[in-house]
Amino acid sequence: MTGYGAVPASVGEPAEMWRFGTRGKGLRDSVIRALTKQLAGRTGLVSFAGGMPSPLTFPDAAVASAFEAVMRQDSKAALQYGPSDGYPPLRQWIAESLSSASVSIGADQVIVTSGSQQGLDLLGKVMLDATDTVAVETPTYLGALQSLGLYATGFLSAPTDGLGIVPAAFDALLSRASGAGRQCKLLYAIPTFQNPTGRTMPLSRRTELVTLCARRRIPIVEDNPYGELDHEGRRHVPLLELGEGNVAYLGSFSKVLSPGLRIGYVVAPRPLARKLELAKQASDLHTCSLTQRLVFEIVRDGFLAHHLESCRALYGANAKAMTAALARHLHGLAEWAEPSGGMFLWLTLQRGLDATALLERALAANVAYVPGAPFYADSPDHRTLRLCYSTAQRDSIETGIAALGRVLKESTDAIHHSSTPGRLA
Amino acid sequence: MTGYGAVPASVGEPAEMWRFGTRGKGLRDSVIRALTKQLAGRTGLVSFAGGMPSPLTFPDAAVASAFEAVMRQDSKAALQYGPSDGYPPLRQWIAESLSSASVSIGADQVIVTSGSQQGLDLLGKVMLDATDTVAVETPTYLGALQSLGLYATGFLSAPTDGLGIVPAAFDALLSRASGAGRQCKLLYAIPTFQNPTGRTMPLSRRTELVTLCARRRIPIVEDNPYGELDHEGRRHVPLLELGEGNVAYLGSFSKVLSPGLRIGYVVAPRPLARKLELAKQASDLHTCSLTQRLVFEIVRDGFLAHHLESCRALYGANAKAMTAALARHLHGLAEWAEPSGGMFLWLTLQRGLDATALLERALAANVAYVPGAPFYADSPDHRTLRLCYSTAQRDSIETGIAALGRVLKESTDAIHHSSTPGRLA
Repeated sequence: MTGYGAVPASVGEPAEMWRFGTRGKGLRDSVIRALTKQLAGRTGLVSFAGGMPSPLTFPDAAVASAFEAVMRQDSKAALQYGPSDGYPPLRQWIAESLSSASVSIGADQVIVTSGSQQGLDLLGKVMLDATDTVAVETPTYLGALQSLGLYATGFLSAPTDGLGIVPAAFDALLSRASGAGRQCKLLYAIPTFQNPTGRTMPLSRRTELVTLCARRRIPIVEDNPYGELDHEGRRHVPLLELGEGNVAYLGSFSKVLSPGLRIGYVVAPRPLARKLELAKQASDLHTCSLTQRLVFEIVRDGFLAHHLESCRALYGANAKAMTAALARHLHGLAEWAEPSGGMFLWLTLQRGLDATALLERALAANVAYVPGAPFYADSPDHRTLRLCYSTAQRDSIETGIAALGRVLKESTDAIHHSSTPGRLA
Repeated sequence: MTGYGAVPASVGEPAEMWRFGTRGKGLRDSVIRALTKQLAGRTGLVSFAGGMPSPLTFPDAAVASAFEAVMRQDSKAALQYGPSDGYPPLRQWIAESLSSASVSIGADQVIVTSGSQQGLDLLGKVMLDATDTVAVETPTYLGALQSLGLYATGFLSAPTDGLGIVPAAFDALLSRASGAGRQCKLLYAIPTFQNPTGRTMPLSRRTELVTLCARRRIPIVEDNPYGELDHEGRRHVPLLELGEGNVAYLGSFSKVLSPGLRIGYVVAPRPLARKLELAKQASDLHTCSLTQRLVFEIVRDGFLAHHLESCRALYGANAKAMTAALARHLHGLAEWAEPSGGMFLWLTLQRGLDATALLERALAANVAYVPGAPFYADSPDHRTLRLCYSTAQRDSIETGIAALGRVLKESTDAIHHSSTPGRLA
């Protein structure tokens, strides 16, 4: 038996045979991937490192009834090839759910994707060339940097504060970039309960940003996986409603139903939607016929309204538990804003502390987080880190944050000692 | 209410806002897509234009039992995010099913994809730059031209005969291309029951081809969706077993279980498998957790052995019915080879007939096929067309082929008349 991969030297080693392209060479393991693998199977550790919705929110019973209904009504179609742009009733439902008094979305503007991550990939594929520059928030979703970074190599990191992109500063940055010959091709933004920071742009700033981008003719890709997870159930106006043809919108059922079903969607102006449909066909023909029907069967009669209440209640309670624990254990060691929705909380450690460097100690103390650095397109703030509160048990939150507090306290003490003349930490 | 897509002229039309990249500009509707849309909802027409497995082969009952088992044992994991490379037990099963006396595949060489179409996309993403040249069979799978063509713009159309690529002629072509400065980066081939021609390479030629590619250091992408559909159940040795590290293999459950579940896979040498895993993560994070488990639950205990017998029997009988009808109605009007597996039959019309030009007349006569031209990377043979016999009813095959025969007969008569001096057809 010959081991696959072993090639006689005379015909060349496999590594020599398989010469990767530019994109292939650039693909690297991320810090988060490495961390996830390191944590897999570890027990006794409290992890705030994930980015997953709580399995407590997964609607097992609704999935089971939907499966029965789909197979009874439509089993052959659910198992057959389907259209590249998606299952028509689901596209219609999505279009209606996004239409409002101020915007009217047609089903022909909706392309169903394998999660909204695929929407990013398709947009990159259709819109970007290697020499293009994409503007992103500071910091931003790592998966967008990875996905769009395979198509365009330049990022412009838009200045932000606790309320998201600062329009005037972004405008000035665009002028400087343009002066240096870099035109911005797209803006990618997560205006509501952003990953990783949890922050949300207020309406006035959304309007300013959309106006600025329209004036500069920069189309916006709005990613909105967390928009319905306001802990108090408040509605946040998507840029899509303000953007008038200047916004492509990425939505997902991953955070509100189940990520394992991989059902997301892109809503785009019609000429772009047609290109995305063709790119979707070339990429994987179409999204799973069965799971598209499952999701439609679940949501068609208003299931989400009640279901979202329980998601919001769980995440709101977890967020409160985490901020209370932070106040108890990290007072003076870090700063944070209380999240009002989504799944994430962003910490900025006090001066002198480095979240990447401290991760090993945190893991030794049985608590995990994601260092903030990988979320920056450039110039990372090494004092930042992301905590995810969606999946943790309430008592684990207390244990984990207490452990994190001890690690930070010890490290702070070590800094102070080492900075005292004549003493070594 | 503002119609989404309508932008005040002062801030630029959407079409102006959304400037597509090179790939986006190049994406065009295919003849097959246009045809599929034209046929949708038409009744009374016999279509041999599809490329879908018969819904009669879909294992509804097995899918339903698998769903029950998965949800009972593992519902939360089936609805949660999963690893980018796929569900480990399914990867293990795939590795074992492909291992033989002559090749040993590890689960770490398997990446589960959303159909094997996505395997093509990931390979293109990782391996190809815009200036690269990819060799393909003459003709080849249109979806591969579309998918790989988004990453590499040059194709080399390898000379073929009824048994697939002719190694000596391919070698000569590679020398000429190389002399003109075009190095071939990859060979994409479907050696078994090819789409569109239905032909299969004999073992001797497979060995020659693999040896030739190894000598020239050209890695092979072997696409094998139909390999298990030999009408008599014969086994065809995949290039993977002969290639020793020089072959990436695309497999799929689409033609043997259900295409709607979108479960395919790539098997690759380890360094390439790691790159594909990262490209998969950037593309859509991972393939559906639920449907991966459904497929594993169905196939784990040997379901396919018995199931494939019924698929083979159905397709074999349909192929026989079609070749019998062709002999009755197309004698002297076209040539074809009797297929021994898969879903397709390839027709070459007699001199003077053009399959693209005749399609309208065929549709008017209530029979549909796919013209052969779009399957050629260059210099199409306009006399060719593809017939799919998997989904047609036995009596429709007779009706449809008879109609096609009448259309060809009338057109042939018209040619003969028009070539008679002094007469107009």
